[in-house]
Amino acid sequence: MSTSRGPEGARVIARYWIETARPLEEAAATMAGEQSTGTFVRVEGETDALRERFAARIEALTPMGETHAPSLPGAWRPSGGAAVWRTAQVTLSWPLHNFGPSLPNLLAAVAGNLWELKAFSGMRLLDLTLPAEFLSVYPGPQFGVAGTRAVSGVHGRPLIGTIIKPSVGLSPDATAARVAELATAGVDFIKDDELQADGPHCPFEARFSAVMRVLREHAERTGHRVLYAVNITGEIDQMLRRHERVVSESGNCVMVSLNSIGLPALTALRAHCQVPIHGHRNGWGLLGRSPAIGVSFPAWQKLWRLAGIDHVHVNGLDNKFCESNESVIASARECRTPMFPPPARGCEIMPVFSSGQTALQVPGTWQALGTVDLIHACGGGIIGHPGGAAAGVRSLRQAWEAAVAGIPLGEYAREHRELAEAIATFGR
Amino acid sequence: MSTSRGPEGARVIARYWIETARPLEEAAATMAGEQSTGTFVRVEGETDALRERFAARIEALTPMGETHAPSLPGAWRPSGGAAVWRTAQVTLSWPLHNFGPSLPNLLAAVAGNLWELKAFSGMRLLDLTLPAEFLSVYPGPQFGVAGTRAVSGVHGRPLIGTIIKPSVGLSPDATAARVAELATAGVDFIKDDELQADGPHCPFEARFSAVMRVLREHAERTGHRVLYAVNITGEIDQMLRRHERVVSESGNCVMVSLNSIGLPALTALRAHCQVPIHGHRNGWGLLGRSPAIGVSFPAWQKLWRLAGIDHVHVNGLDNKFCESNESVIASARECRTPMFPPPARGCEIMPVFSSGQTALQVPGTWQALGTVDLIHACGGGIIGHPGGAAAGVRSLRQAWEAAVAGIPLGEYAREHRELAEAIATFGR
Repeated sequence: MSTSRGPEGARVIARYWIETARPLEEAAATMAGEQSTGTFVRVEGETDALRERFAARIEALTPMGETHAPSLPGAWRPSGGAAVWRTAQVTLSWPLHNFGPSLPNLLAAVAGNLWELKAFSGMRLLDLTLPAEFLSVYPGPQFGVAGTRAVSGVHGRPLIGTIIKPSVGLSPDATAARVAELATAGVDFIKDDELQADGPHCPFEARFSAVMRVLREHAERTGHRVLYAVNITGEIDQMLRRHERVVSESGNCVMVSLNSIGLPALTALRAHCQVPIHGHRNGWGLLGRSPAIGVSFPAWQKLWRLAGIDHVHVNGLDNKFCESNESVIASARECRTPMFPPPARGCEIMPVFSSGQTALQVPGTWQALGTVDLIHACGGGIIGHPGGAAAGVRSLRQAWEAAVAGIPLGEYAREHRELAEAIATFGR
Repeated sequence: MSTSRGPEGARVIARYWIETARPLEEAAATMAGEQSTGTFVRVEGETDALRERFAARIEALTPMGETHAPSLPGAWRPSGGAAVWRTAQVTLSWPLHNFGPSLPNLLAAVAGNLWELKAFSGMRLLDLTLPAEFLSVYPGPQFGVAGTRAVSGVHGRPLIGTIIKPSVGLSPDATAARVAELATAGVDFIKDDELQADGPHCPFEARFSAVMRVLREHAERTGHRVLYAVNITGEIDQMLRRHERVVSESGNCVMVSLNSIGLPALTALRAHCQVPIHGHRNGWGLLGRSPAIGVSFPAWQKLWRLAGIDHVHVNGLDNKFCESNESVIASARECRTPMFPPPARGCEIMPVFSSGQTALQVPGTWQALGTVDLIHACGGGIIGHPGGAAAGVRSLRQAWEAAVAGIPLGEYAREHRELAEAIATFGR
């Protein structure tokens, strides 16, 4: 099913990977029933007419092979004889009128009790296709790629930047001093660590004001306005107050830890927000790491895009975490893939590459993505550069120039000293 | 470490299960470093004094045995030779001043990037111990057990009730008609299904008003005020408006899908709420099902108790989902275990037993828990009773009378017809 609209109106489509010892058709029917009109037993009032109008439907069922051990405990297995655990991809659809265009209530249907069903020894939500009716309620990203470029003044190349480290322990003044060094070095983008929000040793207001003094002076001196994603994560009233402060002091970006705040809090922030929202996905590993259980990045990021983020983290090539390069690239592409067909808005956002990034990963990133519409956060590649942070920033710009021009990094390095030093340092 | 306060001030304590091919001490140090002052490389400014004051600390490390295959993909393994995957429980602590008493920012530390660390092929957050400073910011449950009993007028036994089924497809009037039958049958408690919130075929306002007309008439006629957990899940402004409506029409309980709304939305609701908050945990399986990855119920429920729920679902004995009886009972006990030592508030809440519940599970539930302070949601045991819903309710009250008096169910059934019928019907 390639469209989210049937003759009877809009439908929500969700694709899952499942593992079960039950016949596949029966297992898929259990999912559809439990998450719409059915319950464990047929109850009075569950008429054929009601089911016709409200039941979730199996749109596709593709067997993916068998295995001899269940991935998760607690699943049904035949008594006696050996169980065969079948895997499959199953696509279900729900009439939108079951819950209306409400993200929290969508979740109860597509990501609610499913993972507790006894029929299943494995389940992942792989993808979601939503009808454009959601755009009548949710605004999507306010800035996206074009808006972020307009705010930052960076065009034709990635925004190059870094996270403030150490993550925890710097005072507001020490943080501002670190920011001054980075701004002088020429970064386009600076963000707080997700561990740094409003702790008593480095409270939000003092830190933000100290940093903005530095960045305003820098802009007056150089004309270059660094994008600063200040971490405003907190309770809803706190986030709204902090956003007011950001606007009143000419701040230009806010960061929130998405999994910590939840979709309704992001929706509330987005309704008031006047700057790009930098979405941090910490905690993502809980949903993304296991092949046996969880929610895939393509499904997860759509929810947050609709609710209004402008940027989201996707790790980076050869990162220091456990995510593969294939997964990183697929995630980044997903951020730039329209969620709805034209003329509806596509809600594309800017992927943020980070974790162990230096000039060395630039050619591979460019070759895999074919775009410079990304934020490249390269702490090590900037502050770890032997020529200092300014040389680190230059090495990254040079690497992107080379990649886009189709020139091998080593060749371009012959006439670009900082790139040559980066290769010598990080290529070992 | 049994206290959350060291000589240098309050600390947050988190206990994890881990699996790693690295030496255990090194793996634990990676967790502590990444989630506080450290990063992949030691950076300028990460002084000994800074680490002394802000670093997370390893409080305990208990090896739990070895295994020969990694539970999750993507983890580090030695090149060449066979890897040994070690498992352990590790307890870390953080100075509270790293993030302050903020639940969203606590999450970034104890449940943030940890699951993406390459050192680990398995990780679960098993428990959290928070300092009482959190009570200066978060109110905890407003009603809990005593308040729920006061509102419902039910004392000395569990609240007996059910979920409205079919979950989806009933009109507001059909919902109200179903509620009228259940109220007449004598239930103490009725809740919406989590799939039913504000869909266009059964909008919140029309459904709530229709149900409250029935329940107010019932209360006038019988003096018995049924607790109705109406599902107000939605965006924050929607939930607050729905709560106003609940109060204005003498409603007495609201239900929210916790994982769908997030902690800050619950905190915002709790700040205004005048009735008990019924916490639905749908989606819980995503965190709770796998032994290799996730967050345990003891840790998870503490966050929501602090933020203000009064009830939470724990499944039930011999439930139709995949959770074991041991896990169900442990979860229910956890809800009733104080979060903080006296004189601080314990934040105890009421566990909700549900899923395939009938009179048959009552003796086991009583024996395992030793309390009647719970909500027993028994759809099948009530509407599936051969004598009708009123007989179903009576069979459950009789089962609880027998259990508390220490009388075997079969013996009590000799003089209690509805219980005898329940045993004959559900005991097959």
